[in-house]
Amino acid sequence: MLSSLLIIGVGFMGGSLALALREEGFEGKIFGLDINPESLKKAREKGVIDEGSTSYESVSDFEPEIVVFASPVRTFRDISKRLKPFLKEESVVTDLGSVKGQLVYDLEALLGARFVGAHPIAGTEKSGVEHSVPDLFRDKKLIITPTENTDREALSRVEKLWKAVGADIEFMDPFVHDWVFGAVSHLPHAVAFALIDALIDMSEDIDLFKYPGGGFKDFTRIAGSDPIMWRDIFLENKKNVLKAIEVYINSLQKLKSLIEHEAEGELTRYLEESRHRRMKLDEGS
Amino acid sequence: MLSSLLIIGVGFMGGSLALALREEGFEGKIFGLDINPESLKKAREKGVIDEGSTSYESVSDFEPEIVVFASPVRTFRDISKRLKPFLKEESVVTDLGSVKGQLVYDLEALLGARFVGAHPIAGTEKSGVEHSVPDLFRDKKLIITPTENTDREALSRVEKLWKAVGADIEFMDPFVHDWVFGAVSHLPHAVAFALIDALIDMSEDIDLFKYPGGGFKDFTRIAGSDPIMWRDIFLENKKNVLKAIEVYINSLQKLKSLIEHEAEGELTRYLEESRHRRMKLDEGS
Repeated sequence: MLSSLLIIGVGFMGGSLALALREEGFEGKIFGLDINPESLKKAREKGVIDEGSTSYESVSDFEPEIVVFASPVRTFRDISKRLKPFLKEESVVTDLGSVKGQLVYDLEALLGARFVGAHPIAGTEKSGVEHSVPDLFRDKKLIITPTENTDREALSRVEKLWKAVGADIEFMDPFVHDWVFGAVSHLPHAVAFALIDALIDMSEDIDLFKYPGGGFKDFTRIAGSDPIMWRDIFLENKKNVLKAIEVYINSLQKLKSLIEHEAEGELTRYLEESRHRRMKLDEGS
Repeated sequence: MLSSLLIIGVGFMGGSLALALREEGFEGKIFGLDINPESLKKAREKGVIDEGSTSYESVSDFEPEIVVFASPVRTFRDISKRLKPFLKEESVVTDLGSVKGQLVYDLEALLGARFVGAHPIAGTEKSGVEHSVPDLFRDKKLIITPTENTDREALSRVEKLWKAVGADIEFMDPFVHDWVFGAVSHLPHAVAFALIDALIDMSEDIDLFKYPGGGFKDFTRIAGSDPIMWRDIFLENKKNVLKAIEVYINSLQKLKSLIEHEAEGELTRYLEESRHRRMKLDEGS
């Protein structure tokens, strides 16, 4: 049975993991480490953490069994360096980051075989610990990306943690993970942020944001996501994100050209195929 | 008080208008004209229409007070030509189409000053009369696009129709309408269809559609919209849609370049501005 957990970066995702564990009857201690004392205060008030600190030194007192990185992904390397001197040998380290790939190997090099990369496929555009919810991970996919070096005991403890909160675990190579989620998650976010940017550009004479009907609000909801979190994801998964944006621009150029040339038949097929593929997703769920 | 209504193209939108009128106590006759007898059968079974026909000739018997075009926009010109011989002088004609602009003037030339262009800013990705709902238009924007020629009495009857079902009426020039909705509705649909197309392209080795987490399903829901309806919208509003796609590709190229050059500060600002503008939409609603 897990005795204590330390969440580094106490926001929406880390907070939701803590609440989920509490809901499942977890009675151990939950600690929080954050650069922002305000987040720690809110987290304590909401019952997300028992104790919080802004200083790495307190980690020696916490003696957490598992440490979870829940801050923007580009902070993980620095956190690992600062954390290590205060971490006992047996502590397992994992994360909630949306990028794996080289980052997993870098963290392994810094922290050893006890680092286990994980990525819950859950979340909303909300940020901040005050929005945390206990049922965020139930029946949601949770990708674990072990390497050839990963400690088996550490891996099994991270698996247990996620099983406890009802996640549906799947294993994936760290680099395959980044290709897949570069396409199905990072690309759609880029697409949504850029759509708002385009509408800002086109709003010179008429404020287009006065007409947000026809699914526009739902469609662009993910553009309300945390900018720092997404800046880090785009930069950390740069190669795959750039490739995905390129493929996407090609798809858009193809559509544009069909409209331009009024290629009725081909245009219909293009839209039908997209629709067909999209509809299959609903059937599968 | 309205005595009779004819819906041409009995699908989700036309069906929802009929159900909304019934819900508001409308006791007149509702007729349906459709090329598909199956749609008419479903519409009768659902109580959407009282009588249906596949032949224009029956319009002389129906003697509808108001005719509503509810089929894909590129069918409107042909329908007008075929309908006119069977339509009594006093009948008002309006539509539910997503494109106005030149189409409004063309229909006016075919049908006279009694044609009143209208566009309800409501709908879902669903199609088919069987999915019709009575509350689709309540508190939703309804754009009416009168021209300098529009008959004032016809205009006032169309206004009354939409007030009866709770829509929030706004007037707009037909060409301004097409610029605005080319940007806020047609562009997002193009963006969504193209996103699915890109994922099909990238799914050669790994079926990316197995990982539809992280808001992907909500984000691409509108790509489940009717292909024929959208082919017609894209072609009928070609000029504005192409322009909007161009501006959008520029926004995407800008984002791509910021990621490519790891321009942290500018990238953060780009994402923050998009987020800020998107968040304001929620506050306004």
